[in-house]
Amino acid sequence: MSHILTIGALLFPEFELLDVFGPLEMFGQAGEPFEICTVAEKGGAVASRQGPSTVIDYAFDDQRQYDILLVPGGMGTRREVNNPTLLQWLRTQAPGAKYVTSVCTGSVLLARAGLLDGIRATTNKKAFAWVASQVPDVVWQKQARWVEDGRFFTSSGISAGMDMALTVIARHLGMETAGRVATGAEYEWHRDPGWDPFAKIHVLVS
Amino acid sequence: MSHILTIGALLFPEFELLDVFGPLEMFGQAGEPFEICTVAEKGGAVASRQGPSTVIDYAFDDQRQYDILLVPGGMGTRREVNNPTLLQWLRTQAPGAKYVTSVCTGSVLLARAGLLDGIRATTNKKAFAWVASQVPDVVWQKQARWVEDGRFFTSSGISAGMDMALTVIARHLGMETAGRVATGAEYEWHRDPGWDPFAKIHVLVS
Repeated sequence: MSHILTIGALLFPEFELLDVFGPLEMFGQAGEPFEICTVAEKGGAVASRQGPSTVIDYAFDDQRQYDILLVPGGMGTRREVNNPTLLQWLRTQAPGAKYVTSVCTGSVLLARAGLLDGIRATTNKKAFAWVASQVPDVVWQKQARWVEDGRFFTSSGISAGMDMALTVIARHLGMETAGRVATGAEYEWHRDPGWDPFAKIHVLVS
Repeated sequence: MSHILTIGALLFPEFELLDVFGPLEMFGQAGEPFEICTVAEKGGAVASRQGPSTVIDYAFDDQRQYDILLVPGGMGTRREVNNPTLLQWLRTQAPGAKYVTSVCTGSVLLARAGLLDGIRATTNKKAFAWVASQVPDVVWQKQARWVEDGRFFTSSGISAGMDMALTVIARHLGMETAGRVATGAEYEWHRDPGWDPFAKIHVLVS
Protein backbone atom coordinates (compact mmCIF):
# COMPACT_ATOMS: atom_id res chain seq x y z
CA MET A 1 0.00 0.00 0.00
CA SER A 2 1.61 3.25 -1.00
CA HIS A 3 -1.42 5.55 -0.71
CA ILE A 4 -1.02 7.81 2.34
CA LEU A 5 -3.74 7.87 4.98
CA THR A 6 -3.80 11.04 7.04
CA ILE A 7 -4.83 10.68 10.66
CA GLY A 8 -6.64 13.64 12.18
CA ALA A 9 -6.20 13.33 15.95
CA LEU A 10 -8.79 15.68 17.42
CA LEU A 11 -7.63 17.52 20.53
CA PHE A 12 -9.63 19.67 22.94
CA PRO A 13 -8.81 20.99 26.40
CA GLU A 14 -8.58 18.20 29.00
CA PHE A 15 -8.21 15.40 26.49
CA GLU A 16 -6.87 12.15 27.99
CA LEU A 17 -3.18 11.59 27.17
CA LEU A 18 -3.19 7.85 26.52
CA ASP A 19 -6.43 8.01 24.49
CA VAL A 20 -4.48 9.98 21.91
CA PHE A 21 -0.90 8.79 22.18
CA GLY A 22 -1.59 5.07 22.61
CA PRO A 23 -3.22 4.81 19.16
CA LEU A 24 -0.76 7.29 17.60
CA GLU A 25 2.15 5.16 18.86
CA MET A 26 0.67 2.17 17.05
CA PHE A 27 -0.02 4.06 13.81
CA GLY A 28 3.44 5.60 14.07
CA GLN A 29 5.07 2.18 14.52
CA ALA A 30 3.24 1.00 11.42
CA GLY A 31 4.95 3.83 9.55
CA GLU A 32 3.75 4.33 6.02
CA PRO A 33 1.04 4.78 4.90
CA PHE A 34 -0.03 6.63 8.06
CA GLU A 35 0.65 10.33 8.50
CA ILE A 36 -0.25 11.83 11.85
CA CYS A 37 -1.77 15.32 12.24
CA THR A 38 -3.13 16.97 15.38
CA VAL A 39 -6.20 19.11 14.83
CA ALA A 40 -8.25 21.38 17.07
CA GLU A 41 -10.78 24.17 16.93
CA LYS A 42 -7.96 26.71 16.96
CA GLY A 43 -4.21 26.53 16.41
CA GLY A 44 -1.54 26.86 19.08
CA ALA A 45 -1.40 24.16 21.73
CA VAL A 46 -3.96 22.24 23.77
CA ALA A 47 -3.48 21.05 27.35
CA SER A 48 -4.35 17.48 28.30
CA ARG A 49 -6.24 16.49 31.43
CA GLN A 50 -2.95 15.28 32.92
CA GLY A 51 -1.10 18.53 32.21
CA PRO A 52 1.19 18.26 29.16
CA SER A 53 0.20 20.35 26.13
CA THR A 54 0.36 19.21 22.51
CA VAL A 55 1.09 21.49 19.57
CA ILE A 56 -1.75 21.73 17.05
CA ASP A 57 -0.83 21.12 13.40
CA TYR A 58 -4.12 22.29 11.88
CA ALA A 59 -7.20 24.20 12.98
CA PHE A 60 -10.77 23.42 11.89
CA ASP A 61 -10.64 26.41 9.55
CA ASP A 62 -7.87 24.77 7.53
CA GLN A 63 -10.62 22.50 6.16
CA ARG A 64 -8.39 19.51 5.51
CA GLN A 65 -10.09 16.17 5.06
CA TYR A 66 -8.60 13.33 7.12
CA ASP A 67 -8.71 9.67 6.14
CA ILE A 68 -8.78 8.47 9.74
CA LEU A 69 -10.46 10.44 12.50
CA LEU A 70 -9.25 9.76 16.03
CA VAL A 71 -11.53 11.17 18.71
CA PRO A 72 -10.21 10.79 22.27
CA GLY A 73 -12.05 11.04 25.56
CA GLY A 74 -11.15 12.73 28.79
CA MET A 75 -12.91 15.10 31.14
CA GLY A 76 -13.04 17.63 28.30
CA THR A 77 -15.80 15.63 26.61
CA ARG A 78 -18.20 16.81 29.35
CA ARG A 79 -17.86 20.30 27.88
CA GLU A 80 -17.41 19.40 24.20
CA VAL A 81 -20.76 17.56 24.00
CA ASN A 82 -22.20 21.08 24.02
CA ASN A 83 -19.74 22.60 21.55
CA PRO A 84 -21.63 23.05 18.25
CA THR A 85 -18.45 24.01 16.37
CA LEU A 86 -16.71 20.75 17.26
CA LEU A 87 -19.80 18.64 16.58
CA GLN A 88 -20.27 20.31 13.21
CA TRP A 89 -16.62 19.65 12.34
CA LEU A 90 -17.15 15.95 13.05
CA ARG A 91 -20.23 15.98 10.80
CA THR A 92 -18.28 17.52 7.92
CA GLN A 93 -15.31 15.13 8.36
CA ALA A 94 -17.04 11.80 8.87
CA PRO A 95 -18.52 11.26 5.39
CA GLY A 96 -15.10 11.50 3.74
CA ALA A 97 -13.17 9.46 6.30
CA LYS A 98 -12.24 5.85 5.64
CA TYR A 99 -12.15 5.03 9.35
CA VAL A 100 -13.90 6.96 12.13
CA THR A 101 -12.41 5.98 15.48
CA SER A 102 -12.85 6.94 19.10
CA VAL A 103 -11.33 6.05 22.45
CA CYS A 104 -13.05 6.17 25.82
CA THR A 105 -15.72 8.88 26.04
CA GLY A 106 -14.72 10.14 22.58
CA SER A 107 -17.66 8.13 21.25
CA VAL A 108 -20.09 10.49 22.99
CA LEU A 109 -18.86 13.26 20.69
CA LEU A 110 -19.44 11.14 17.58
CA ALA A 111 -22.85 10.24 18.99
CA ARG A 112 -23.81 13.82 19.79
CA ALA A 113 -22.84 14.75 16.22
CA GLY A 114 -25.51 12.26 15.14
CA LEU A 115 -23.00 9.93 13.49
CA LEU A 116 -23.74 6.82 15.53
CA ASP A 117 -27.54 6.59 15.32
CA GLY A 118 -28.39 2.90 14.89
CA ILE A 119 -24.69 2.00 15.03
CA ARG A 120 -23.17 -0.44 17.53
CA ALA A 121 -20.61 1.38 19.69
CA THR A 122 -18.93 1.35 23.07
CA THR A 123 -17.20 3.71 25.48
CA ASN A 124 -15.39 3.93 28.83
CA LYS A 125 -17.06 1.54 31.26
CA LYS A 126 -16.92 3.86 34.27
CA ALA A 127 -18.64 6.63 32.27
CA PHE A 128 -21.02 4.27 30.46
CA ALA A 129 -24.24 5.49 32.09
CA TRP A 130 -23.48 9.14 31.36
CA VAL A 131 -22.50 8.46 27.74
CA ALA A 132 -25.53 6.25 27.04
CA SER A 133 -27.88 8.84 28.57
CA GLN A 134 -26.53 11.52 26.24
CA VAL A 135 -27.55 9.73 23.02
CA PRO A 136 -29.93 6.78 23.49
CA ASP A 137 -30.28 6.12 19.74
CA VAL A 138 -26.86 4.45 19.60
CA VAL A 139 -26.73 0.66 20.05
CA TRP A 140 -24.42 0.92 23.06
CA GLN A 141 -22.45 -2.23 23.89
CA LYS A 142 -21.85 -2.76 27.62
CA GLN A 143 -19.15 -5.38 27.29
CA ALA A 144 -16.59 -4.82 24.54
CA ARG A 145 -12.93 -3.88 24.36
CA TRP A 146 -13.86 -2.19 21.12
CA VAL A 147 -16.70 -2.35 18.59
CA GLU A 148 -16.32 -2.37 14.82
CA ASP A 149 -19.41 -1.42 12.85
CA GLY A 150 -18.66 -0.56 9.25
CA ARG A 151 -16.25 2.36 9.20
CA PHE A 152 -16.79 3.06 12.89
CA PHE A 153 -14.32 1.74 15.47
CA THR A 154 -15.22 2.82 18.99
CA SER A 155 -13.16 1.58 21.90
CA SER A 156 -13.57 1.26 25.62
CA GLY A 157 -11.59 3.29 28.15
CA ILE A 158 -8.13 4.75 27.72
CA SER A 159 -5.75 1.81 27.12
CA ALA A 160 -8.34 0.08 24.90
CA GLY A 161 -7.52 2.57 22.17
CA MET A 162 -4.29 0.70 21.47
CA ASP A 163 -6.14 -2.55 20.76
CA MET A 164 -8.60 -0.69 18.54
CA ALA A 165 -5.82 1.05 16.61
CA LEU A 166 -4.08 -2.27 16.02
CA THR A 167 -7.35 -3.61 14.62
CA VAL A 168 -7.62 -0.67 12.19
CA ILE A 169 -4.02 -1.36 11.15
CA ALA A 170 -4.94 -5.03 10.66
CA ARG A 171 -7.94 -4.12 8.50
CA HIS A 172 -5.81 -1.89 6.34
CA LEU A 173 -2.44 -3.68 6.22
CA GLY A 174 -3.21 -7.20 7.44
CA MET A 175 -2.88 -9.09 10.70
CA GLU A 176 0.80 -9.81 10.21
CA THR A 177 1.71 -6.13 10.04
CA ALA A 178 -0.49 -5.32 13.04
CA GLY A 179 1.16 -8.15 14.98
CA ARG A 180 4.60 -6.80 14.08
CA VAL A 181 3.58 -3.33 15.29
CA ALA A 182 2.34 -4.71 18.63
CA THR A 183 5.56 -6.69 19.10
CA GLY A 184 7.62 -3.64 18.19
CA ALA A 185 5.89 -1.73 20.96
CA GLU A 186 6.32 -4.75 23.28
CA TYR A 187 2.57 -4.57 23.68
CA GLU A 188 0.37 -7.54 24.49
CA TRP A 189 -2.40 -6.92 22.00
CA HIS A 190 -5.87 -8.04 23.07
CA ARG A 191 -7.13 -9.36 19.74
CA ASP A 192 -10.54 -10.39 21.04
CA PRO A 193 -13.01 -7.46 21.00
CA GLY A 194 -15.08 -9.34 23.57
CA TRP A 195 -12.27 -9.27 26.14
CA ASP A 196 -13.50 -6.74 28.69
CA PRO A 197 -13.04 -7.52 32.39
CA PHE A 198 -13.78 -3.88 33.20
CA ALA A 199 -17.48 -4.15 32.29
CA LYS A 200 -17.90 -6.50 35.23
CA ILE A 201 -15.90 -4.32 37.61
CA HIS A 202 -18.20 -1.41 36.84
CA VAL A 203 -21.28 -3.65 37.28
CA LEU A 204 -22.45 -3.27 33.70
CA VAL A 205 -22.66 -7.05 33.31
CA SER A 206 -22.91 -9.70 36.02
CA MET B 1 0.47 11.34 51.34
CA SER B 2 0.14 15.06 50.91
CA HIS B 3 3.73 15.88 49.91
CA ILE B 4 3.87 16.65 46.20
CA LEU B 5 6.25 14.71 43.97
CA THR B 6 7.20 16.54 40.80
CA ILE B 7 7.80 14.40 37.75
CA GLY B 8 10.37 15.67 35.27
CA ALA B 9 9.57 14.02 31.93
CA LEU B 10 12.68 14.53 29.84
CA LEU B 11 11.97 15.23 26.18
CA PHE B 12 14.39 15.38 23.24
CA PRO B 13 13.81 15.36 19.47
CA GLU B 14 12.46 12.00 18.26
CA PHE B 15 11.37 10.78 21.67
CA GLU B 16 8.91 7.86 21.53
CA LEU B 17 5.32 8.95 22.24
CA LEU B 18 4.12 6.05 24.36
CA ASP B 19 7.37 5.92 26.38
CA VAL B 20 6.39 9.31 27.76
CA PHE B 21 2.62 9.38 27.74
CA GLY B 22 1.97 5.82 28.93
CA PRO B 23 3.68 6.47 32.29
CA LEU B 24 2.31 10.04 32.51
CA GLU B 25 -1.23 8.70 32.02
CA MET B 26 -0.70 6.40 35.01
CA PHE B 27 0.83 9.10 37.23
CA GLY B 28 -1.94 11.46 36.10
CA GLN B 29 -4.65 8.93 36.97
CA ALA B 30 -3.08 8.57 40.42
CA GLY B 31 -3.61 12.33 40.84
CA GLU B 32 -2.06 13.82 43.94
CA PRO B 33 0.74 13.74 44.97
CA PHE B 34 2.12 13.64 41.41
CA GLU B 35 2.68 16.85 39.45
CA ILE B 36 3.79 16.43 35.83
CA CYS B 37 6.36 18.71 34.17
CA THR B 38 7.96 18.37 30.75
CA VAL B 39 11.61 19.37 30.61
CA ALA B 40 14.10 19.69 27.78
CA GLU B 41 17.45 21.28 26.95
CA LYS B 42 15.64 24.36 25.68
CA GLY B 43 12.10 25.71 25.97
CA GLY B 44 9.51 25.79 23.21
CA ALA B 45 8.27 22.45 21.89
CA VAL B 46 9.88 19.12 21.01
CA ALA B 47 8.76 16.81 18.21
CA SER B 48 8.31 13.10 18.86
CA ARG B 49 9.52 10.33 16.58
CA GLN B 50 5.90 9.80 15.48
CA GLY B 51 5.30 13.48 14.65
CA PRO B 52 3.30 15.26 17.36
CA SER B 53 5.15 17.94 19.33
CA THR B 54 4.90 18.52 23.06
CA VAL B 55 5.18 21.90 24.76
CA ILE B 56 8.13 22.18 27.16
CA ASP B 57 7.33 23.47 30.66
CA TYR B 58 10.93 23.97 31.83
CA ALA B 59 14.39 24.11 30.27
CA PHE B 60 17.55 22.70 31.85
CA ASP B 61 18.61 26.25 32.74
CA ASP B 62 15.61 26.61 35.03
CA GLN B 63 17.52 24.32 37.41
CA ARG B 64 14.48 22.80 39.08
CA GLN B 65 15.00 19.58 40.99
CA TYR B 66 12.49 16.82 40.14
CA ASP B 67 11.44 14.09 42.55
CA ILE B 68 10.83 11.58 39.77
CA LEU B 69 12.87 11.54 36.59
CA LEU B 70 11.23 9.92 33.56
CA VAL B 71 13.66 9.26 30.71
CA PRO B 72 12.02 7.93 27.53
CA GLY B 73 13.58 6.17 24.57
CA GLY B 74 13.05 6.58 20.88
CA MET B 75 15.34 7.04 17.91
CA GLY B 76 16.50 10.31 19.46
CA THR B 77 18.55 8.39 22.02
CA ARG B 78 21.00 7.45 19.24
CA ARG B 79 21.97 11.13 19.11
CA GLU B 80 21.52 12.03 22.79
CA VAL B 81 24.05 9.42 23.98
CA ASN B 82 26.60 11.91 22.61
CA ASN B 83 24.98 15.04 24.07
CA PRO B 84 27.15 16.14 27.02
CA THR B 85 24.62 18.80 28.11
CA LEU B 86 21.83 16.25 28.50
CA LEU B 87 24.08 13.69 30.22
CA GLN B 88 25.33 16.35 32.63
CA TRP B 89 21.75 17.37 33.42
CA LEU B 90 20.95 13.75 34.32
CA ARG B 91 24.02 13.67 36.59
CA THR B 92 22.92 16.81 38.43
CA GLN B 93 19.30 15.59 38.79
CA ALA B 94 19.76 11.97 39.82
CA PRO B 95 21.23 12.44 43.31
CA GLY B 96 18.22 14.48 44.46
CA ALA B 97 15.54 12.35 42.82
CA LYS B 98 13.50 9.88 44.83
CA TYR B 99 12.88 7.68 41.79
CA VAL B 100 14.97 7.59 38.60
CA THR B 101 12.97 5.89 35.85
CA SER B 102 13.44 5.07 32.19
CA VAL B 103 11.46 3.46 29.40
CA CYS B 104 12.86 1.61 26.40
CA THR B 105 16.27 2.92 25.30
CA GLY B 106 16.00 5.73 27.85
CA SER B 107 18.19 3.59 30.10
CA VAL B 108 21.13 4.06 27.75
CA LEU B 109 21.08 7.77 28.61
CA LEU B 110 21.15 7.05 32.35
CA ALA B 111 23.94 4.56 31.68
CA ARG B 112 25.99 6.96 29.56
CA ALA B 113 25.64 9.53 32.34
CA GLY B 114 27.41 6.96 34.56
CA LEU B 115 24.39 6.51 36.81
CA LEU B 116 23.89 2.77 36.29
CA ASP B 117 27.40 1.39 36.86
CA GLY B 118 26.99 -1.85 38.83
CA ILE B 119 23.20 -1.42 38.80
CA ARG B 120 20.77 -4.00 37.41
CA ALA B 121 18.81 -2.48 34.52
CA THR B 122 16.97 -3.32 31.32
CA THR B 123 15.97 -1.73 28.03
CA ASN B 124 14.08 -2.31 24.77
CA LYS B 125 14.67 -5.89 23.66
CA LYS B 126 15.10 -5.11 19.97
CA ALA B 127 17.79 -2.51 20.78
CA PHE B 128 19.37 -4.58 23.55
CA ALA B 129 22.68 -5.29 21.81
CA TRP B 130 23.23 -1.63 20.94
CA VAL B 131 22.37 -0.41 24.44
CA ALA B 132 24.54 -3.01 26.19
CA SER B 133 27.48 -2.23 23.90
CA GLN B 134 27.29 1.45 24.84
CA VAL B 135 27.88 0.91 28.56
CA PRO B 136 29.11 -2.57 29.52
CA ASP B 137 29.49 -1.72 33.24
CA VAL B 138 25.73 -1.94 33.79
CA VAL B 139 24.31 -5.29 34.93
CA TRP B 140 21.99 -5.53 31.92
CA GLN B 141 19.02 -7.88 32.30
CA LYS B 142 18.00 -9.66 29.09
CA GLN B 143 14.62 -10.83 30.27
CA ALA B 144 12.60 -8.39 32.35
CA ARG B 145 9.50 -6.28 31.86
CA TRP B 146 11.17 -3.82 34.18
CA VAL B 147 13.98 -3.90 36.74
CA GLU B 148 13.89 -2.23 40.15
CA ASP B 149 17.26 -1.66 41.79
CA GLY B 150 17.12 0.79 44.65
CA ARG B 151 15.83 4.11 43.32
CA PHE B 152 16.30 3.00 39.72
CA PHE B 153 13.35 1.67 37.74
CA THR B 154 14.29 0.83 34.14
CA SER B 155 11.72 -0.73 31.86
CA SER B 156 11.72 -2.66 28.64
CA GLY B 157 10.34 -1.31 25.35
CA ILE B 158 7.62 1.30 24.91
CA SER B 159 4.45 -0.17 26.47
CA ALA B 160 6.48 -1.61 29.39
CA GLY B 161 6.74 1.89 30.81
CA MET B 162 3.13 1.68 31.96
CA ASP B 163 3.84 -1.41 34.07
CA MET B 164 6.93 0.26 35.51
CA ALA B 165 5.05 3.46 36.35
CA LEU B 166 2.34 1.46 38.12
CA THR B 167 5.08 -0.18 40.18
CA VAL B 168 6.48 3.21 41.19
CA ILE B 169 2.95 4.26 42.17
CA ALA B 170 2.62 1.03 44.17
CA ARG B 171 5.91 1.69 45.99
CA HIS B 172 4.81 5.19 46.88
CA LEU B 173 1.06 4.85 47.47
CA GLY B 174 0.51 1.10 47.88
CA MET B 175 -0.68 -1.73 45.65
CA GLU B 176 -4.35 -0.91 46.13
CA THR B 177 -3.95 2.58 44.71
CA ALA B 178 -1.84 1.31 41.82
CA GLY B 179 -4.46 -1.33 41.06
CA ARG B 180 -7.18 1.33 41.09
CA VAL B 181 -5.15 3.44 38.65
CA ALA B 182 -4.71 0.49 36.27
CA THR B 183 -8.41 -0.31 36.41
CA GLY B 184 -9.28 3.35 35.82
CA ALA B 185 -7.22 3.25 32.66
CA GLU B 186 -8.80 -0.13 31.75
CA TYR B 187 -5.24 -1.40 31.59
CA GLU B 188 -4.23 -4.98 32.23
CA TRP B 189 -1.24 -4.36 34.46
CA HIS B 190 1.57 -6.92 34.20
CA ARG B 191 2.55 -7.08 37.86
CA ASP B 192 5.31 -9.64 37.35
CA PRO B 193 8.60 -7.95 36.39
CA GLY B 194 9.73 -11.32 34.98
CA TRP B 195 6.94 -11.37 32.38
CA ASP B 196 8.76 -10.68 29.13
CA PRO B 197 7.78 -12.70 26.05
CA PHE B 198 9.64 -10.18 23.87
CA ALA B 199 13.10 -11.27 25.09
CA LYS B 200 12.46 -14.62 23.42
CA ILE B 201 11.15 -13.06 20.20
CA HIS B 202 14.34 -11.06 19.88
CA VAL B 203 16.44 -14.16 20.64
CA LEU B 204 17.96 -12.76 23.83
CA VAL B 205 16.93 -15.88 25.73
CA SER B 206 16.08 -19.32 24.37
